[in-house]
Amino acid sequence: MLEKLKQEVYKANLELPERGLIKYTWGNVSGFDPETQLFVIKPSGVDYAQMKPEDMVVCNLDCEIVEGDLRPSSDMPTHAVLYKSFPNIGSVVHTHSPWATIWAQAGLDVPAMGTTHADTFYGSVPCARFLTASEINRDYEYETGNVIVETFKERNIDPNAVPAVLLQGHAPFVWAKDCEHAVMNAVVLEEVCKMNLFTQQLNAYAKALPEEILNKHYERKHGENAYYGQK
Amino acid sequence: MLEKLKQEVYKANLELPERGLIKYTWGNVSGFDPETQLFVIKPSGVDYAQMKPEDMVVCNLDCEIVEGDLRPSSDMPTHAVLYKSFPNIGSVVHTHSPWATIWAQAGLDVPAMGTTHADTFYGSVPCARFLTASEINRDYEYETGNVIVETFKERNIDPNAVPAVLLQGHAPFVWAKDCEHAVMNAVVLEEVCKMNLFTQQLNAYAKALPEEILNKHYERKHGENAYYGQK
Amino acid sequence: MLEKLKQEVYKANLELPERGLIKYTWGNVSGFDPETQLFVIKPSGVDYAQMKPEDMVVCNLDCEIVEGDLRPSSDMPTHAVLYKSFPNIGSVVHTHSPWATIWAQAGLDVPAMGTTHADTFYGSVPCARFLTASEINRDYEYETGNVIVETFKERNIDPNAVPAVLLQGHAPFVWAKDCEHAVMNAVVLEEVCKMNLFTQQLNAYAKALPEEILNKHYERKHGENAYYGQK
Amino acid sequence: MLEKLKQEVYKANLELPERGLIKYTWGNVSGFDPETQLFVIKPSGVDYAQMKPEDMVVCNLDCEIVEGDLRPSSDMPTHAVLYKSFPNIGSVVHTHSPWATIWAQAGLDVPAMGTTHADTFYGSVPCARFLTASEINRDYEYETGNVIVETFKERNIDPNAVPAVLLQGHAPFVWAKDCEHAVMNAVVLEEVCKMNLFTQQLNAYAKALPEEILNKHYERKHGENAYYGQK
Repeated sequence: MLEKLKQEVYKANLELPERGLIKYTWGNVSGFDPETQLFVIKPSGVDYAQMKPEDMVVCNLDCEIVEGDLRPSSDMPTHAVLYKSFPNIGSVVHTHSPWATIWAQAGLDVPAMGTTHADTFYGSVPCARFLTASEINRDYEYETGNVIVETFKERNIDPNAVPAVLLQGHAPFVWAKDCEHAVMNAVVLEEVCKMNLFTQQLNAYAKALPEEILNKHYERKHGENAYYGQK
Repeated sequence: MLEKLKQEVYKANLELPERGLIKYTWGNVSGFDPETQLFVIKPSGVDYAQMKPEDMVVCNLDCEIVEGDLRPSSDMPTHAVLYKSFPNIGSVVHTHSPWATIWAQAGLDVPAMGTTHADTFYGSVPCARFLTASEINRDYEYETGNVIVETFKERNIDPNAVPAVLLQGHAPFVWAKDCEHAVMNAVVLEEVCKMNLFTQQLNAYAKALPEEILNKHYERKHGENAYYGQK
Repeated sequence: MLEKLKQEVYKANLELPERGLIKYTWGNVSGFDPETQLFVIKPSGVDYAQMKPEDMVVCNLDCEIVEGDLRPSSDMPTHAVLYKSFPNIGSVVHTHSPWATIWAQAGLDVPAMGTTHADTFYGSVPCARFLTASEINRDYEYETGNVIVETFKERNIDPNAVPAVLLQGHAPFVWAKDCEHAVMNAVVLEEVCKMNLFTQQLNAYAKALPEEILNKHYERKHGENAYYGQK
Repeated sequence: MLEKLKQEVYKANLELPERGLIKYTWGNVSGFDPETQLFVIKPSGVDYAQMKPEDMVVCNLDCEIVEGDLRPSSDMPTHAVLYKSFPNIGSVVHTHSPWATIWAQAGLDVPAMGTTHADTFYGSVPCARFLTASEINRDYEYETGNVIVETFKERNIDPNAVPAVLLQGHAPFVWAKDCEHAVMNAVVLEEVCKMNLFTQQLNAYAKALPEEILNKHYERKHGENAYYGQK
């Protein structure tokens, strides 16, 4: 069942430590199949060296396990909420990558200070609020998804144009059309978080990118008139 | 004698440089056997490339060598005091991992600023005081253990819930139920020390995690109702 | 056509991720052939693991593709302007290497604070201004080249003595007589940007190198009386 | 001639990039033979991938080449002055390792803020002054050696107890009884420079180590009563 997607999800999970985004099992990647409305996610707390593609767990958007012998990642309900609410996304990545986590711990949006940012994120990456005690007690991981969705709705941000969020005191969630690009977006976010922190240290007066450069770089890579890469 | 534990201790010592926690021989791991009340520790100052499992030294809780041709790590008495005083621990790790050492040199507790911290440490990781001149002269490594124990007692911290300490001007000691988890806790501490330092630089007003999130994350992974990982 | 140069350009592009200057495809190297007045550049957005020497694209100084099945790097026109304007250069490198990009985002020149800098760059590496909206709309990559040339002309900097520039809000462009040295200069710039940032943090009063040491180190390696390396 | 020492010097030079102390050829190691009063040093600017043990150059304390087809490192006269002036040393290492270079560029002594420092350096590592214009013009590398010697003499520092120096605006020189330990001391200096910079950022009031701990740690590893390592 969804064997090809399991392979992709498996490979993308292995990429997380290879690209320096996580240590041990501190992250998870899932992939969504629009036809069956099911998603595939890594099992919880399994050593990456032991993990096999067939260990991936298949879930539905009601957070039920459809196939798999192992428990899914404990963050599974957050993934389900994102797939239900952000219709065009095909993969979700969660990491505790250090520089993005530093911004999350600081409780700050990541401003678009350079073209590395603008090539991927069309404006600031928002930092979502802490969950309340009652949200935590109700269903922590599910409510985490709701707080992310609330953030994009209230601030009127298009999740396809800004495919990432920070959770205050926690870490980033990142998404894309497929697993490979979701991991890539997590790498960009990590790099941008590192660079923006030191940019502000080097020059406290440094500002976000002028809007015309933000537009230009985003549109070089995205949308109808994109001309980066091969056709 | 304790051949299996020697293998584990040997492997855990090799993990220290592999995971970037130490350079050369600047660290040591020991493992405790509750049945015999003996512990196994790496020899002092032996090149990791030459070291073999059978070089591990067996000691008792009175700091006597029970088996082994080589001198044990010079920090051996600190390990002995911890095994005697913290009854549920099965392994102790000492490193000079840079970010944790920076907090130790700064003489500051490491606050729980994010869920990466809360997943492992239930509250601040304490920084123990400098040893006095008379403690240093009496028996430096043994008294180091005593200062650690004093810190947890006086501040009423449960060493099982906060399995790490910084020694002011020196570096961390970390522990767990077994060698593999003790090394893992040392990796978490290192990552958290790096992230918290830059969090404070990015936002001088950043606070420790709200208590309900600290509780939630610690309890996701520890205690009766833990639901992280496989059963 | 230009097979040897294609090999060099291909190899130099692979060196960018190997030396930690880029992730994914966030950079490009080109090489110039003075005889034919053509240059060879990497194709746009092709995965480095798949890329072959024969994928390199041959262009002329009017930004036309002379040979190649793939689209050239989208930054190709910037390279063309540099070859046209800076007559002695044989290779151009563009990266988003983090520390150089941090200075670019901060909008600051990189002062010569040490001999590591002076061994390669004879004075500050300038930061060129943002492009205006009308320059961006006209021909972004071509005008980027023009802004670089303007910077060196207006500030009276010899591009052979200071073979690098930062573009505000963007990242560095670096050059040299050949691909190998252009990559090397990009490595030096990255290292110097990291060191100078922390030098200023450590000592806010630290100044640029005294002129006699700048001269000495630059002349040890460059010009008629150079005595570094083998004859 | 001195084949064994050439092997050691060759190996130690290769260790510099392996341990992250240098990039390209930005460093050099030499080894001294007390019997012949000659020293062996790496050739200048030769790619480490091509370099062979027999390329090492043999020099005497008057800075003359005694054997070798290649030019010695341009810093050779600095090494000669150190061997002549510091009688117990058997190897000198020069790098531009970034954290030590940052302190050199900041023009500051490196205080002993932790036991990692005290295990190797018995007190602050001094930063020597800039050379004057006339010293630079007379014989830059030879006078560099003289400034180092002057620093230790004027400040009454024992070069065996503090086997390293920073040169303002330049980088470190480090030494030891043999090549292996000289490289090790360069690694310690680099680590300590990184840790002390961030210690001061984390706690501006952090002080140097209390003298009794400095003494204890230095004496654990050095001198008659050392008890670290194997007999």
